[in-house]
Amino acid sequence: MAEIKDMLQTSQVIRPDGRAVDELRAVRITRHFTDAPEGSVLIECGSTRVMCTATFTAGVPRWRRDSGLGWVTAEYAMLPRATSERTDREAVRGKIGGRTHEISRLIGRCLRGVIDTKALGENQIQMDCDVLQADGGTRTASITGAYVALVDALRWAESKRLIHSADKVLKDAVSAVSVGVINGTPMLDLPYIEDSQAMTDMNVAMTGSGDFIEIQGTAEHRPFNRQELGTLLDLAEKGNKELQAAQRAALAKD
Amino acid sequence: MAEIKDMLQTSQVIRPDGRAVDELRAVRITRHFTDAPEGSVLIECGSTRVMCTATFTAGVPRWRRDSGLGWVTAEYAMLPRATSERTDREAVRGKIGGRTHEISRLIGRCLRGVIDTKALGENQIQMDCDVLQADGGTRTASITGAYVALVDALRWAESKRLIHSADKVLKDAVSAVSVGVINGTPMLDLPYIEDSQAMTDMNVAMTGSGDFIEIQGTAEHRPFNRQELGTLLDLAEKGNKELQAAQRAALAKD
Amino acid sequence: MAEIKDMLQTSQVIRPDGRAVDELRAVRITRHFTDAPEGSVLIECGSTRVMCTATFTAGVPRWRRDSGLGWVTAEYAMLPRATSERTDREAVRGKIGGRTHEISRLIGRCLRGVIDTKALGENQIQMDCDVLQADGGTRTASITGAYVALVDALRWAESKRLIHSADKVLKDAVSAVSVGVINGTPMLDLPYIEDSQAMTDMNVAMTGSGDFIEIQGTAEHRPFNRQELGTLLDLAEKGNKELQAAQRAALAKD
Amino acid sequence: MAEIKDMLQTSQVIRPDGRAVDELRAVRITRHFTDAPEGSVLIECGSTRVMCTATFTAGVPRWRRDSGLGWVTAEYAMLPRATSERTDREAVRGKIGGRTHEISRLIGRCLRGVIDTKALGENQIQMDCDVLQADGGTRTASITGAYVALVDALRWAESKRLIHSADKVLKDAVSAVSVGVINGTPMLDLPYIEDSQAMTDMNVAMTGSGDFIEIQGTAEHRPFNRQELGTLLDLAEKGNKELQAAQRAALAKD
Amino acid sequence: MAEIKDMLQTSQVIRPDGRAVDELRAVRITRHFTDAPEGSVLIECGSTRVMCTATFTAGVPRWRRDSGLGWVTAEYAMLPRATSERTDREAVRGKIGGRTHEISRLIGRCLRGVIDTKALGENQIQMDCDVLQADGGTRTASITGAYVALVDALRWAESKRLIHSADKVLKDAVSAVSVGVINGTPMLDLPYIEDSQAMTDMNVAMTGSGDFIEIQGTAEHRPFNRQELGTLLDLAEKGNKELQAAQRAALAKD
Amino acid sequence: MAEIKDMLQTSQVIRPDGRAVDELRAVRITRHFTDAPEGSVLIECGSTRVMCTATFTAGVPRWRRDSGLGWVTAEYAMLPRATSERTDREAVRGKIGGRTHEISRLIGRCLRGVIDTKALGENQIQMDCDVLQADGGTRTASITGAYVALVDALRWAESKRLIHSADKVLKDAVSAVSVGVINGTPMLDLPYIEDSQAMTDMNVAMTGSGDFIEIQGTAEHRPFNRQELGTLLDLAEKGNKELQAAQRAALAKD
Repeated sequence: MAEIKDMLQTSQVIRPDGRAVDELRAVRITRHFTDAPEGSVLIECGSTRVMCTATFTAGVPRWRRDSGLGWVTAEYAMLPRATSERTDREAVRGKIGGRTHEISRLIGRCLRGVIDTKALGENQIQMDCDVLQADGGTRTASITGAYVALVDALRWAESKRLIHSADKVLKDAVSAVSVGVINGTPMLDLPYIEDSQAMTDMNVAMTGSGDFIEIQGTAEHRPFNRQELGTLLDLAEKGNKELQAAQRAALAKD
Repeated sequence: MAEIKDMLQTSQVIRPDGRAVDELRAVRITRHFTDAPEGSVLIECGSTRVMCTATFTAGVPRWRRDSGLGWVTAEYAMLPRATSERTDREAVRGKIGGRTHEISRLIGRCLRGVIDTKALGENQIQMDCDVLQADGGTRTASITGAYVALVDALRWAESKRLIHSADKVLKDAVSAVSVGVINGTPMLDLPYIEDSQAMTDMNVAMTGSGDFIEIQGTAEHRPFNRQELGTLLDLAEKGNKELQAAQRAALAKD
Repeated sequence: MAEIKDMLQTSQVIRPDGRAVDELRAVRITRHFTDAPEGSVLIECGSTRVMCTATFTAGVPRWRRDSGLGWVTAEYAMLPRATSERTDREAVRGKIGGRTHEISRLIGRCLRGVIDTKALGENQIQMDCDVLQADGGTRTASITGAYVALVDALRWAESKRLIHSADKVLKDAVSAVSVGVINGTPMLDLPYIEDSQAMTDMNVAMTGSGDFIEIQGTAEHRPFNRQELGTLLDLAEKGNKELQAAQRAALAKD
Repeated sequence: MAEIKDMLQTSQVIRPDGRAVDELRAVRITRHFTDAPEGSVLIECGSTRVMCTATFTAGVPRWRRDSGLGWVTAEYAMLPRATSERTDREAVRGKIGGRTHEISRLIGRCLRGVIDTKALGENQIQMDCDVLQADGGTRTASITGAYVALVDALRWAESKRLIHSADKVLKDAVSAVSVGVINGTPMLDLPYIEDSQAMTDMNVAMTGSGDFIEIQGTAEHRPFNRQELGTLLDLAEKGNKELQAAQRAALAKD
Repeated sequence: MAEIKDMLQTSQVIRPDGRAVDELRAVRITRHFTDAPEGSVLIECGSTRVMCTATFTAGVPRWRRDSGLGWVTAEYAMLPRATSERTDREAVRGKIGGRTHEISRLIGRCLRGVIDTKALGENQIQMDCDVLQADGGTRTASITGAYVALVDALRWAESKRLIHSADKVLKDAVSAVSVGVINGTPMLDLPYIEDSQAMTDMNVAMTGSGDFIEIQGTAEHRPFNRQELGTLLDLAEKGNKELQAAQRAALAKD
Repeated sequence: MAEIKDMLQTSQVIRPDGRAVDELRAVRITRHFTDAPEGSVLIECGSTRVMCTATFTAGVPRWRRDSGLGWVTAEYAMLPRATSERTDREAVRGKIGGRTHEISRLIGRCLRGVIDTKALGENQIQMDCDVLQADGGTRTASITGAYVALVDALRWAESKRLIHSADKVLKDAVSAVSVGVINGTPMLDLPYIEDSQAMTDMNVAMTGSGDFIEIQGTAEHRPFNRQELGTLLDLAEKGNKELQAAQRAALAKD
């Protein structure tokens, strides 16, 4: 941690939105955003806004029947005008794009990483993460928001006696944040303008206990070395701790 | 109008949400709901919530080039958990369903009905209506909200000198409302619980001048006669006038 | 009715095919057009020709099982060269277009509007309306022809003792016709050349009892007022009465 | 030929429809069946009925531009209730089936086999063969009918001076017929009931000069030897000669 | 046979690869090419290389259940860079092309032509023929290689006691070869360079007993007469005999 | 490095195939595996076999024109019977699955990470990685093999003077390897049997200089901590060094 602060002081980097390099954007988590879903959360990370709804269904898909185990799956999508240029709907094009697939799978894995599928029993949770507005970090915001919707859906199921205990299903919390190297400086929580210039871009999902669920680091523009990786993981750890505090605060209300 | 009030007094119908038969649900129109689109509106009609974004693009599709005329098109979609049961994504199923197609086309026709495509010039407006929460009347709420987003997009285009005058492009306002016959009683603005019991269901889009742009009346359960049609149109006229007042109020701000 | 005749005399409108404004095109209904279907009808309205085949199947789709109720559904399509320019096949494009979806749904609703699904029992009727030649009014011709094919399929089912009584399943007859305003003059049964110039275009499906099943009025070019609506409905009523006479005459044979 | 007659006398086979083993079903070719296409033919071979429409378009697909050569292509499809059981529409399933692809390609090759693409110039003919009623031999009826529609389209193009001479484009006539071995007996022109029992099934397309354009022989149930092949080709030759006489008779009218 | 040799001597045709007109390309059949499949064969015919894998599954598709009969099906595909120009993947385009469909069906029919589906019992064999390198004759190489993979899969099933006897399931061997007329000369086993110039192109599948399973002759460029057909079939017979010797030799090993 | 050896000695883990925990499977790289592609490589890592073909095309996709920059893209696919159970073809299902999309994108990013797109000029390289046999690590084998095919394609392009210098386009080498934690023990290069039991699974792509291009670590079963991450990266570094030696050896030949 000390290391990060040093770096900050020496580099004196000014980010477009005035944040320090190890500072998260403002996070806002709104539970019960819509009425129908078992869990419904609007998460805002700066200008990025994602609606996460959790659907709890008794029973599992055919391939998992009679296993005694539950299943959690996720789908991610962007509304056409979440971005500055309109994107054609995947439904209209008739197929899901590679990026959408990749992110949907990432969210699903992160949630499954903190779930005890045995304690869930033969029940399914489908998470839908729809990006209303995109300004970088939509996949990590989706994971962070989805966890809160997941908790709400499990609490609902417990109240309906569909599961024995939400707490037993949840092995840990999970949140995610992006980090990246911009002009040689490692930074936390990149908005679109920074993300598009990043030499290296990394998404890090961590548990409440501080372990890793997913690390996805990509260096399309310039490879990164072991030391930079270390700094990026430090930043991600700091960010995830703060995001998990926001999750806890949101879940404490009601 | 007097006729409707009489009917109300005699029938003494109690609607599930306590409204009178000729009473609209609460309408709320929020402009600039998101930042990127040229027009971005959240419209709430009771529990129904639709996000309408208008994308203004210089140029028109190939088939319309060199016509000197603009084009307005619309796409409607429901988020998977807008409804009480989750609906599979059309992108995942790989095709647009019939209902989606039908509504998208309806919205497009209504907007084109009040647009002077010559004054728009060779520019295109793509309207996206995404239902965040569905409780009946999503297609009519889409039309009413889309008109406001359309005005904002045209004002933006005027400010960027992409069109000469937003007012010249707009020949009139347009709004829409549903009416229906439930247990023999004509009613205005049906939520899902009423809509699913309606013998006759009608969507009526009207201009600010009080003329019709679209009438779509359907009697899957019991045909309707000329007199019922008259009462339904009276109700629709009353509803549309009130919706247009809400549109004007929203557009007057800022 | 008197009103229409007055209008005719004053306006002295000459239609491209020499008809009066309230005159239907020649209608010809050929039953048993092909051998395999339970009902098979070729309907010709002027140059528009639609082949309507009704397939009666014991049993209903999964979602309707054990309801005791039957189901009627319809699919509409155009052969590629039904029109003056060839249209690509939807099968080749790999998806059904919006217009096709919209019309298929309309036909299905109209037929269901005159069917007692309880008397039908758990049986399904699939109506296929394939346009061999298109000259305006293909959707209304489809409805009018489909009703005759429906009756034949039900009579067949009665003869095979798959249903108790065709007459009990049929609550009423149904036919449909288009009306529209061309250069300010309301007219009945528009061929393509008129349809493409119509300011307002309306399709009206009515029962034999003179009630409405569907009204779909669209004013992409110029909104219509309450009075015009009245005249258009008068014309539609006249047209549907004549079409129903043609249906009865066709069904009386054999 | 003598050989076939001998076989007939000895075998004394009685076919379900009373025909001799070397006898075609009744053929009827109706030109100008619909108005819009440049060529429009209804061909009936027994109960099999196929509508063949030829669309003549100036210009060729991109890949063939500046070659100086024309192009002829074909699409085959069955209406859903052409058969005794209803077949789902390929447009609804969202893809073309293997059988449809196979037959469309066959028809295209047969037509191209008698066309001088240089004399056609950079023009395209799209043939659509839609089966209204299927009772075996739909692909061969399509070829036979399509040739007549092709001639009409070329005559039309000549009359419009889009090509220099229809006769120069047509190198020869083409027709096709099915033959097969049923219970050991070679037979000509199989209806569905025979086709489904055939040990060997062969479709033979021949030119007016008596040469082969396509031979497609299939023995899913029992292989065939060289001698049987000879008899089948004799039958096909006889059948094609008679079909070509019917083509010439149809084309002589008008 | 004598006839072919005569023709060879007189014509003195020099083929691009130095072969005689009635000479096959070098054939190499490698069994157990990969480990997982029940049958896995790499067949090389000159530069053409096809990987044929046979998957044996207990049980049959739903439509064939309780018939007591087995089923054999085949799928053919080309790797994108099997050809000199890269071909887009059909999975990416989202649909199977006509050529692929046609060939997959051909291979399936040829295999079923030598299988006793009753002796196979309610088991399914799925053959996959993937072209690693294409130099003409990929469909015939697929059939020839697939037969060997089929035998291996049946032997495997016999060893696992899933079927009683591989020999009883196999009614005969099957192989296939292409023949064609190039510049007036009939030739055996055409590589791409010859195939693309062929006036007539024919694929002939034959059993070990010398009977025909499939004959597919196409004359897009110049029709062929009865005599040419005879010569082509002689060549095909010679080629298939040699290919069947190569199949036997491969199957004799281990 | 010393650390890994210590761990090995103490843990005494016996892997199913007898390898030490930090030992790669046997690697074999065959260049010029097929003839047509500009680069064609068969890579074998243990039983995993992937065919990597590089297609060099002058020009870039439309969206990149006039940028002066080249483009490298990749597509990954599995043959249906690469696995122990047959997988349906994505072409038949009509859509690309999420896993395929995810891996294709990963390969593309890794290759682009070592390419100077400016030195490539407006040329495109399409890499196809088709898995002939899958036994774990197919995505990392694809990357390692694809690099060799990429070099061959660039050398070819240099020889044809389509690019100035292959060496200038290649900023570095790239290879990839999987690592994972099995029963608490970090291991290098997991075959399927280990991969399916891994608590944590990580794919690491590195440059010849020892920097990271991609790190994708996933902990669906048990999160991993910073220390485990360190050990896994040590193993990956060792593995990648050895794979790069194999790449250099293969490229040195011929």
